[in-house]
Amino acid sequence: MTPNKRLKTYPLTKAKHVKVHGRTTHTLAPLTLFWTGSGIELNIKGSELWIEMEVDYQVYEQWISIVINGVPVSRLMATEGRHWICILRGMDPETAKNVRVVKDVQPMSSDSRCLLQIHALRIDGELLPVADKPHKVEFIGDSITSGEGTIGAKEEVDWVPMLFTALHNYTAITAEALNADYRVLSQSGWGVLTGWDNNPHTNIPAYYEQVCGVLTGERNETLGAFSDHDFTSWQPDVVVVNLGTNDGGAFYSPAWTDPTSGKVYKQRLNEDGTFNEEDLQAFENAVKKFLIKLRTCNPAAHIVWAYGMLGTPMMPAIYRAVDAYKKRTRDRNVSVFQLPNTTEETIGSRSHPGLPAHTKAANELIVYLREILKN
Amino acid sequence: MTPNKRLKTYPLTKAKHVKVHGRTTHTLAPLTLFWTGSGIELNIKGSELWIEMEVDYQVYEQWISIVINGVPVSRLMATEGRHWICILRGMDPETAKNVRVVKDVQPMSSDSRCLLQIHALRIDGELLPVADKPHKVEFIGDSITSGEGTIGAKEEVDWVPMLFTALHNYTAITAEALNADYRVLSQSGWGVLTGWDNNPHTNIPAYYEQVCGVLTGERNETLGAFSDHDFTSWQPDVVVVNLGTNDGGAFYSPAWTDPTSGKVYKQRLNEDGTFNEEDLQAFENAVKKFLIKLRTCNPAAHIVWAYGMLGTPMMPAIYRAVDAYKKRTRDRNVSVFQLPNTTEETIGSRSHPGLPAHTKAANELIVYLREILKN
Amino acid sequence: MTPNKRLKTYPLTKAKHVKVHGRTTHTLAPLTLFWTGSGIELNIKGSELWIEMEVDYQVYEQWISIVINGVPVSRLMATEGRHWICILRGMDPETAKNVRVVKDVQPMSSDSRCLLQIHALRIDGELLPVADKPHKVEFIGDSITSGEGTIGAKEEVDWVPMLFTALHNYTAITAEALNADYRVLSQSGWGVLTGWDNNPHTNIPAYYEQVCGVLTGERNETLGAFSDHDFTSWQPDVVVVNLGTNDGGAFYSPAWTDPTSGKVYKQRLNEDGTFNEEDLQAFENAVKKFLIKLRTCNPAAHIVWAYGMLGTPMMPAIYRAVDAYKKRTRDRNVSVFQLPNTTEETIGSRSHPGLPAHTKAANELIVYLREILKN
Amino acid sequence: MTPNKRLKTYPLTKAKHVKVHGRTTHTLAPLTLFWTGSGIELNIKGSELWIEMEVDYQVYEQWISIVINGVPVSRLMATEGRHWICILRGMDPETAKNVRVVKDVQPMSSDSRCLLQIHALRIDGELLPVADKPHKVEFIGDSITSGEGTIGAKEEVDWVPMLFTALHNYTAITAEALNADYRVLSQSGWGVLTGWDNNPHTNIPAYYEQVCGVLTGERNETLGAFSDHDFTSWQPDVVVVNLGTNDGGAFYSPAWTDPTSGKVYKQRLNEDGTFNEEDLQAFENAVKKFLIKLRTCNPAAHIVWAYGMLGTPMMPAIYRAVDAYKKRTRDRNVSVFQLPNTTEETIGSRSHPGLPAHTKAANELIVYLREILKN
Repeated sequence: MTPNKRLKTYPLTKAKHVKVHGRTTHTLAPLTLFWTGSGIELNIKGSELWIEMEVDYQVYEQWISIVINGVPVSRLMATEGRHWICILRGMDPETAKNVRVVKDVQPMSSDSRCLLQIHALRIDGELLPVADKPHKVEFIGDSITSGEGTIGAKEEVDWVPMLFTALHNYTAITAEALNADYRVLSQSGWGVLTGWDNNPHTNIPAYYEQVCGVLTGERNETLGAFSDHDFTSWQPDVVVVNLGTNDGGAFYSPAWTDPTSGKVYKQRLNEDGTFNEEDLQAFENAVKKFLIKLRTCNPAAHIVWAYGMLGTPMMPAIYRAVDAYKKRTRDRNVSVFQLPNTTEETIGSRSHPGLPAHTKAANELIVYLREILKN
Repeated sequence: MTPNKRLKTYPLTKAKHVKVHGRTTHTLAPLTLFWTGSGIELNIKGSELWIEMEVDYQVYEQWISIVINGVPVSRLMATEGRHWICILRGMDPETAKNVRVVKDVQPMSSDSRCLLQIHALRIDGELLPVADKPHKVEFIGDSITSGEGTIGAKEEVDWVPMLFTALHNYTAITAEALNADYRVLSQSGWGVLTGWDNNPHTNIPAYYEQVCGVLTGERNETLGAFSDHDFTSWQPDVVVVNLGTNDGGAFYSPAWTDPTSGKVYKQRLNEDGTFNEEDLQAFENAVKKFLIKLRTCNPAAHIVWAYGMLGTPMMPAIYRAVDAYKKRTRDRNVSVFQLPNTTEETIGSRSHPGLPAHTKAANELIVYLREILKN
Repeated sequence: MTPNKRLKTYPLTKAKHVKVHGRTTHTLAPLTLFWTGSGIELNIKGSELWIEMEVDYQVYEQWISIVINGVPVSRLMATEGRHWICILRGMDPETAKNVRVVKDVQPMSSDSRCLLQIHALRIDGELLPVADKPHKVEFIGDSITSGEGTIGAKEEVDWVPMLFTALHNYTAITAEALNADYRVLSQSGWGVLTGWDNNPHTNIPAYYEQVCGVLTGERNETLGAFSDHDFTSWQPDVVVVNLGTNDGGAFYSPAWTDPTSGKVYKQRLNEDGTFNEEDLQAFENAVKKFLIKLRTCNPAAHIVWAYGMLGTPMMPAIYRAVDAYKKRTRDRNVSVFQLPNTTEETIGSRSHPGLPAHTKAANELIVYLREILKN
Repeated sequence: MTPNKRLKTYPLTKAKHVKVHGRTTHTLAPLTLFWTGSGIELNIKGSELWIEMEVDYQVYEQWISIVINGVPVSRLMATEGRHWICILRGMDPETAKNVRVVKDVQPMSSDSRCLLQIHALRIDGELLPVADKPHKVEFIGDSITSGEGTIGAKEEVDWVPMLFTALHNYTAITAEALNADYRVLSQSGWGVLTGWDNNPHTNIPAYYEQVCGVLTGERNETLGAFSDHDFTSWQPDVVVVNLGTNDGGAFYSPAWTDPTSGKVYKQRLNEDGTFNEEDLQAFENAVKKFLIKLRTCNPAAHIVWAYGMLGTPMMPAIYRAVDAYKKRTRDRNVSVFQLPNTTEETIGSRSHPGLPAHTKAANELIVYLREILKN
């Protein structure tokens, strides 16, 4: 290979005009990427670009996607170690190219060693400013929002990072169509009150105010994952909450016993197969509490509870909870939106919504959010 | 990372049941991949798979795609050096997975240092046999068949490997729909008689009988690129020839002067903008000659001249040449098929057919070839 | 024309195997068609078929569609008078053909002279039995369910029968996909509590138990339009209620003054643009009351409140009402289903959902009802 | 019905601004419609429009379609007799509406009594001028161009007018997309040299110069069907010839014996299943002769031989013939265009291309003709 002598290395702290996407700390030495869909964006006037990444994990490797001028051109597994990865090369040095490097996998709460960091860039040209998009959208959800099953063969059943994507996903499709910057906070299997397995600890609201509180372990603590998130730094115009699917599943899952307290948790079904009202009420209360928290953290945002890509059993309860919240608070800036259900034609791998289901959901959501963003 | 102690390394020569795709030599120590769409396929019963690749180039880096159970999950740039690349990990060790690693870029005739080799595998399980598909198809063509412009933003104009794909491509789509093994021989800018620039040396027929004669340089010679291809080793049921687009372009390009002989070459236009008949006749003769060579090399194959994705100016000449060939040889097993033209809606990057154009072309071709394969 | 001497005329009372679709009386001398989508179906083994229709109106002419072997082949305006209309001719006398003649227009409550009757058939062969479909679905709704705007140019604004269809319509598309016989009860502009204009009399529930109580006039009375409908004669498996759109509109329309009592009716908006709670409660009460009536009339049917093709402002109220009804009655066989909203791409004439919007809504509804019909 | 006292009757000769479509005579008292797709167009500022039609036939009844503001709203069988047909009523008298009444069936050469005439209009407003479209296209063809099988169930096999349409048809779709006035000359089963059954008389070229020479009988003669067509009255920018399908079929059909001369006609196959060269040459000569005639009649038109919707066996011969014609005449304004083949998904009734096949063919043709009309 002819060495490119014009390449210069810049630690991220020294690289001007690098835009960081996704909720994280303010540290750039190095930059830690926690959430799916997070990453960096830059406009490079140069022919070649490399990025120095550091990756670690016990079980779940990292995956990244590379987007050039708005189009994904590469998606790769990032294995353990500190590597220089070539993002592009051999291109016209005089033309500016928009580049995004995107974390394709959710934070793995069960693997405290999971780590994806960016240390430095190597370029042979200059970086130009990256403008903010006119809108900001935050997506909060579970496996659906984590893009679980949006890639790979329908027969795939292994729960592996390879089968998650940040881009074949209603979040990315919606944000692009709305010309919005966006952030994603999501965990597979988690809910508002409990996870799919009745575990009351795997609920998103409890960790919403932290940078990435769903993680565990000392290193993540040191990295600031558990610190309070600075909401003033990024205020969304719209918060889309796509939660409830796992809360619904919990009614059909075995009880969960807390290993420490020995306490048993279970969302119960009545004998006629309907939801136990007390347990359903607990879910509704959790929704109301979460809305209050979301409003506190995002005073001006329109909050949309978007639900339905894997059926709508919780929809009446969600409507009741949102109604009750609005009645009590007089907060008008909250609404419920039903997403289209997934069908045999639109399903992906791991019995999760596939790209067609996400595209369909996005197309409905886009029309709905456009109206909201007009006001 | 928890090291996977069950991983074992096998040089390709020792790995059973590795199926090689694409025209190459018989050498496996290492295996050299020359053509786009070439690669290896294996069925692994194991949880983890790595591949040792060696990559070199002066200018044009390599790209590969990884296909798991028939679905592309990864596409990455392969930079200079000898690397171990992880293809999959963390999957159910008891389930067999079909894996293809595919070269995403054509042989680069202008860069004699271009090299992509596979030395070894590392797996923690066993390889199972890979069955041959019921059909075999060979595609011969130019940039269209090389998948130039089938990925990336429409605005892209750089001639770089990143913008070529082997899979977003009518060849791969057609072969999959027909359940066929396939090979691709293609060079951007080349033709039957001359290249787009009137260069008479950049014609595919002259090199058709070699393993990969379009390349240059001593290393490629040592690797066997210029040796005669053993046609008995792989006989296609159908040969699809998608050539003529650059021969047509030559009429509108400046003359080409041979640097060694100083001789000037030009396909001429008449004053009324039509093709000079003598030059057109030379093209038709080249088509006839190529058909004779194709028949010699592929005695039983149905030969389909498939043309039209970037307009059909040469179609009458192609029909005349095929007619003349059939009249003279009484060979009935040759036909012409018009591919749908590319439109503003279906164009890709570098003003080449995009994925929609390739999908449309494939859908037409599939119906046509199904009929042929019935007989 | 060569007269077809084999033609014989049968009054409907004498014609065997004529299946009547749509809610009407038991009288066949003649048969009166009241509702859109109503009509007759027959299997004719013969070459030619005529139907004697009688049509009257003050303002709004009749329209019919003709469906041969499941495919619409003709749609025509039926003007005043008693006419013989040729349905088919010149066909193979030995082949049985399934024929449906379908009323394409809703009952016109504002034109008491509207009349569409079938007196007799003329055929040159025999009629074969028409089997019932395995399922029965009843659709109740407003202009959307009447197919207003499902045909004609987008610019059309006249409120004329020409712009209504029974077949380019989610009801017909859904019923066909479910292989169901179906009936439609619908009135443009009507609601559950009030019409779009706050008129409390234009509400469907008040007339649900009559054959076609939405009509007026002595002739309709004589024809039995106002008699009690015999619900035992046809029990649907599913009742789809697509109402609420006009109740929502009433909040934004001027008050309506009852010409007789002088009483003023208005669904009020709060100053902040939200719905007045008292008035919204009145709507919810109307929904609950209607559900009780629907259950009384259709003891075994699954009732689906399907709403959303022109926005979802009433959805929370609908959910509240359905919840309250279910809580009180323990009736589990009721659910709410959100239909996809209409967009600029899918709109039809008269600013109503077009065929694309109806097709999309039907495709969602079909998947949902299939699940219900399984149980 | 409230009689509309403002209605006035105008014989066609007295009605200003009625635009006649399709090749016919200059007579308006009455206007005879011969070809499919022919008819009248008018812009009416009024609320109501009736048309007086006269219909006759021995066997094959007439069908018409009614297009309001560019959208078909009605399609009906027209039975024997002289009838007033209501085209529209009850519309805003102040708004101008564009109305087309279109003959939906080809001239029936086997039924000399077939007749469709328009005598008069009845309107309650005024007619406004109808502008000519910027382009003119003439389509010449067989059953495909007659829209045979473009409506009705796939299982339909009867050869009846009901299964022909002028609008669900590549001709109408193409003309509308190109914003062109258009004419159609077509006969099911006919060819360039012979019909599908080897009958040498059922060839379009022999009758191309007459108004509607494919018809027979004294009445048609009196009506001017056999008079020379005045080509100066309407010169197309493009002539699309979609012929060859039946000439190809003739090779596979039994011989045809001329009842008068007793002479036997047969396009022969060689033993190896290929076309007999002499017979194929006769076809090519017929194509050349027809091109000469078309050029004489349409000096400035671009002639496109468009072929392929039911396979492409004659394509090489068509290319040879067009080549030979162009070589000899130096006429550059002629080209061959391959239409996409019909598949199981796109087929219609009577094993003919359905609406999807016509739409697909039109979409390809539109792109091609747009380029031509630019120049």
